[in-house]
Amino acid sequence: MLGNLGIAVVGSGRAGMIHARNFASGIDGARLVAMVDPVAEARAAALRELGLDRGYGDYREALADPAVGAVVVVTPTATHREIVVAAAEAGKHVLCEKPMAMTAEECTAMIAACDRGRVRLQLGFMRRYARDFVEAKAAIDAGAVGEVVLVKSHTRGPSVPQPWMYDIAKSNGPLAEVNSHDIDALRWFAGDDFAEVYAIGGNYRCPEARKEHPDFYDNVAMTIRFRRGAQGMIDGAQGVGYAYDARLEVVGTRGVLLVGALQASSVVICGSDSRLVSPAVRSWRDLFADAYREEDRAFVGCVLEDRPPTPSGRDGLEAVRAVNAGNRSIATGQPVKL
Amino acid sequence: MLGNLGIAVVGSGRAGMIHARNFASGIDGARLVAMVDPVAEARAAALRELGLDRGYGDYREALADPAVGAVVVVTPTATHREIVVAAAEAGKHVLCEKPMAMTAEECTAMIAACDRGRVRLQLGFMRRYARDFVEAKAAIDAGAVGEVVLVKSHTRGPSVPQPWMYDIAKSNGPLAEVNSHDIDALRWFAGDDFAEVYAIGGNYRCPEARKEHPDFYDNVAMTIRFRRGAQGMIDGAQGVGYAYDARLEVVGTRGVLLVGALQASSVVICGSDSRLVSPAVRSWRDLFADAYREEDRAFVGCVLEDRPPTPSGRDGLEAVRAVNAGNRSIATGQPVKL
Amino acid sequence: MLGNLGIAVVGSGRAGMIHARNFASGIDGARLVAMVDPVAEARAAALRELGLDRGYGDYREALADPAVGAVVVVTPTATHREIVVAAAEAGKHVLCEKPMAMTAEECTAMIAACDRGRVRLQLGFMRRYARDFVEAKAAIDAGAVGEVVLVKSHTRGPSVPQPWMYDIAKSNGPLAEVNSHDIDALRWFAGDDFAEVYAIGGNYRCPEARKEHPDFYDNVAMTIRFRRGAQGMIDGAQGVGYAYDARLEVVGTRGVLLVGALQASSVVICGSDSRLVSPAVRSWRDLFADAYREEDRAFVGCVLEDRPPTPSGRDGLEAVRAVNAGNRSIATGQPVKL
Amino acid sequence: MLGNLGIAVVGSGRAGMIHARNFASGIDGARLVAMVDPVAEARAAALRELGLDRGYGDYREALADPAVGAVVVVTPTATHREIVVAAAEAGKHVLCEKPMAMTAEECTAMIAACDRGRVRLQLGFMRRYARDFVEAKAAIDAGAVGEVVLVKSHTRGPSVPQPWMYDIAKSNGPLAEVNSHDIDALRWFAGDDFAEVYAIGGNYRCPEARKEHPDFYDNVAMTIRFRRGAQGMIDGAQGVGYAYDARLEVVGTRGVLLVGALQASSVVICGSDSRLVSPAVRSWRDLFADAYREEDRAFVGCVLEDRPPTPSGRDGLEAVRAVNAGNRSIATGQPVKL
Repeated sequence: MLGNLGIAVVGSGRAGMIHARNFASGIDGARLVAMVDPVAEARAAALRELGLDRGYGDYREALADPAVGAVVVVTPTATHREIVVAAAEAGKHVLCEKPMAMTAEECTAMIAACDRGRVRLQLGFMRRYARDFVEAKAAIDAGAVGEVVLVKSHTRGPSVPQPWMYDIAKSNGPLAEVNSHDIDALRWFAGDDFAEVYAIGGNYRCPEARKEHPDFYDNVAMTIRFRRGAQGMIDGAQGVGYAYDARLEVVGTRGVLLVGALQASSVVICGSDSRLVSPAVRSWRDLFADAYREEDRAFVGCVLEDRPPTPSGRDGLEAVRAVNAGNRSIATGQPVKL
Repeated sequence: MLGNLGIAVVGSGRAGMIHARNFASGIDGARLVAMVDPVAEARAAALRELGLDRGYGDYREALADPAVGAVVVVTPTATHREIVVAAAEAGKHVLCEKPMAMTAEECTAMIAACDRGRVRLQLGFMRRYARDFVEAKAAIDAGAVGEVVLVKSHTRGPSVPQPWMYDIAKSNGPLAEVNSHDIDALRWFAGDDFAEVYAIGGNYRCPEARKEHPDFYDNVAMTIRFRRGAQGMIDGAQGVGYAYDARLEVVGTRGVLLVGALQASSVVICGSDSRLVSPAVRSWRDLFADAYREEDRAFVGCVLEDRPPTPSGRDGLEAVRAVNAGNRSIATGQPVKL
Repeated sequence: MLGNLGIAVVGSGRAGMIHARNFASGIDGARLVAMVDPVAEARAAALRELGLDRGYGDYREALADPAVGAVVVVTPTATHREIVVAAAEAGKHVLCEKPMAMTAEECTAMIAACDRGRVRLQLGFMRRYARDFVEAKAAIDAGAVGEVVLVKSHTRGPSVPQPWMYDIAKSNGPLAEVNSHDIDALRWFAGDDFAEVYAIGGNYRCPEARKEHPDFYDNVAMTIRFRRGAQGMIDGAQGVGYAYDARLEVVGTRGVLLVGALQASSVVICGSDSRLVSPAVRSWRDLFADAYREEDRAFVGCVLEDRPPTPSGRDGLEAVRAVNAGNRSIATGQPVKL
Repeated sequence: MLGNLGIAVVGSGRAGMIHARNFASGIDGARLVAMVDPVAEARAAALRELGLDRGYGDYREALADPAVGAVVVVTPTATHREIVVAAAEAGKHVLCEKPMAMTAEECTAMIAACDRGRVRLQLGFMRRYARDFVEAKAAIDAGAVGEVVLVKSHTRGPSVPQPWMYDIAKSNGPLAEVNSHDIDALRWFAGDDFAEVYAIGGNYRCPEARKEHPDFYDNVAMTIRFRRGAQGMIDGAQGVGYAYDARLEVVGTRGVLLVGALQASSVVICGSDSRLVSPAVRSWRDLFADAYREEDRAFVGCVLEDRPPTPSGRDGLEAVRAVNAGNRSIATGQPVKL
């Protein structure tokens, strides 16, 4: 099954390069054939690092390339709908990074286009392929804590919000940027959809955004009620100085499960100040390096073996709906039904 | 300063006996002089265990006893107001267990009575005296995580809710029974009062209560906005089979702090099933044994040295207000302002 | 059973005051009646802190005091034999701190005297009463790791060796001062006696001792073979800057058990340097405060209920034999049989 | 630098396949060109899995293959000398698995042959490339614990000793099979060579070997003195049921460092038995998967950039000397100088 699926990665930013490096080596059944980036220098740098010669400035060129069987879409969220719909119409399978899109309507259009084009659409919630999370989910499914009562998850990232994020209407805020993963994880672990959310947000670390963007928040707390009655709690933050902190906890009728760790290695040092010191996880790239690889493998597997991918377009859609409901709740101060 | 303050403990249940044993030995400046319990057998058993001879069936007898300088009130919540007001009028100092009362009005009356009677009123939030929590609070105050952005706290207890708790209007529910501690801890760590809460509740473990008490909840998730803008999250549970689980987390502008542990000892065993196993904390009595002793010491210190106690009646009042706001939010599905 | 056994504590140093404070309050069946210390100021300070009026400059005065039913011997090791033998002859029960004595001969004389005097002799290996160690031993006995193959234990203490310790012939060195506890713990967990030891020592932290005391060591590594064939490993250190570090590990035929922790509290802080920081245990006084209390309780229980104490004089003797064998091995470079 | 160095892996057992899979994809500058295994079925299975067509039954065929620039030797230890010397004479670079050989003489011959043949010789102590160990070593070098006083390391593996290991004279026992890694790690962390060792061994888990092989041991404890005076302790075990347990600890003049963990994932589950449960590491293949990849990368880097490899032939030689000294100590009951 080696070498069958030609991959074009659209976007050569940090996450784009993770996928590109994976497909450049070590993903059975696929090979990286092209990089797409409208910025010439970024494109050239990516090709150089990857030892690749085919670079396109426009994603449409990649879609026209018969060597390309699938695209990985790692561009700004607002461009996802256009690219994914075009890819589907060109008959290219799609691995689309999160958040899927800005609105539920966009997501629905993307799903419909992929259905019409008979191409696979997988969403980039890589925690579904992170070893510890997979192990945790298997334990939950095996009844380790009884019935799921409450799922808590948080993601707090060190990346300082960039000015384009300040306008929540345009960026969908931290709920989209960091908590999309928690939203998907909650749905995955609860095995259920969100019925209602309530969220509060505040700007604690970006004083420069306060005047022009009073609605901007860099810290958010959200409560969720699932359709079948379980509870959820999510919190998120951007620009935390300390680490990349992603942990999840499931309270069941008969137990509790924790997954995720702040500690980055097994090294513990105690020096003359009598303090135990260990390194914290600094980046999602370190924490989820293996998960991205497994995600890319799973995508290739679905395409080559003609199976429905996980997470699906619907998982992407539900996350976008939750993000938007959360943002509406923050804006109105009221719980919002989905 | 030995032997100055005579203590009567009103109520010989589990928490009552913790206080009684403490005052029976090892609290400088105080001595246990009487136990009060209307149930003769319980009273007799307590006196026997404590090696004490003075037992009263009615708290008023203890208040009339000149050897009694202070009372520790460890009776059902609904009786607190009457007992504390009477104690204040009798000139007896008061250490009152949590929750302080059923309503804010009761709390206000208790505070006023203690003010009028010129007696000290301390509330039984013993986490304020738990070594790890004290250490954590000192670190927060020293700026270890920057400004406080979000305080999360949860308490999940193994005690199965008893039928008298099923009627939330009469019991105030888990928010009162277990989460009073989290509410006080949030206020303590944030250094601020609650401005608004939103809570959801559900009954996941007590099917026998569902028919007659559809409003009963044994699991709750609450979001808090503080007056000066910080965020809070609390969750609580009763009847969890697994442990007594009380952990708190503070997210700041520049870091994070965690306090509380599920692990009850340093013992780790790995046997032939390749699983690492450690014992979990089974009871608040184990976890907070030292904290109760420090709390009792602090109370005696405040009385003897004529200092205002911590936590105060106002801390008790604010917690009751938050409990009631949370219950109203659960009932109405809307956020509730305090 | 309250108030039966009058206790005199001989020696008002750090460990002496721990015992004295315990017996001054909270040990059922016993009461502190006298402190012994030849240094008048130290004695006076101890009496003042303890609220006690009976202080003796000479242990013989305490032995002559009819209110004294038992003595706790917390004096320099070289004085133990004389005091314990005299106490036994005076009919006083003895709780003797570790190391029991300087030589096996002294130990044998002490045991014989206590037998003749029909008094109880308990040794001060308080780890036998430390909750985590007790729990670990129970798990081993219950077969949690199968048959015991290897017991490892170490004690590394922050106390800087004092000049009187430099002469190993007079002090018996760190093997006596800190590793006595490990030796006893190994025998306890293996349920067996030492057959042979091999040890190496070195002076790494006390350059000022090197010239006059080339044999002084502040770090030691010892290998043990038990009579029935199990293995042991001990290491010890004095003057480590970092913590009081006492951990034990048991390898069995089917598993492993770890007990003891460097971490002093559940508080973990991660600040802007992305390092997880927790406080380390700074002193055996913190770590074993509860163990000392249980040890003192157990001693009183044995005396009042006429049961043989644990650990016994023989446990003290075997530890001294192991210390001396270890020191001989260091000196000769050869394994030494016991 | 892609595709320059052709690799033949000699031996298709578990470790052989790890190297083969690495070189088959993802190691820049190298490509797997051939597998060598005298067993036809094993060879065929390896080729099939690797998608490779070149398989040799005799290593000499690989050495004669001009496409082969380097060999990875993953055969039984007793064959290492012959293969490595032949490879060196054929001008092929060598990555040789541990233990390097059975005797110091063999090692010396191998080193000399590689020197004469001007080929690189790297030893397969992959812990030198394990992320946590590298981080730990960097901290030690940066002075995190002061001067190194004592290095402790152990490896306890779940693999049940196979009958060919029972004859220590032929297998060199667990000291060679599992503790070679600890020996190398001690030298690496101490930055020094062994001066003297003392070891004891016993057979606790393999009763079937006792009669014919009374010298066989499956558990070993070894004490080490380094040339410049530091101390070392190693223990090792085979056939432990519980996990693959590899941990290292460095005591310095001013601190302590721990590296290695029993816990295999961040998942912690607490169910209704109030026990915290996490999975333990089951195999070195899981634990060191990344380390093998880094080791293979480093080997290719040394060859292509003409740098001396780490660890070197001399590191392999010193480990073999320590293994043999340890076995002699076990046999004679005496410390053995190196």
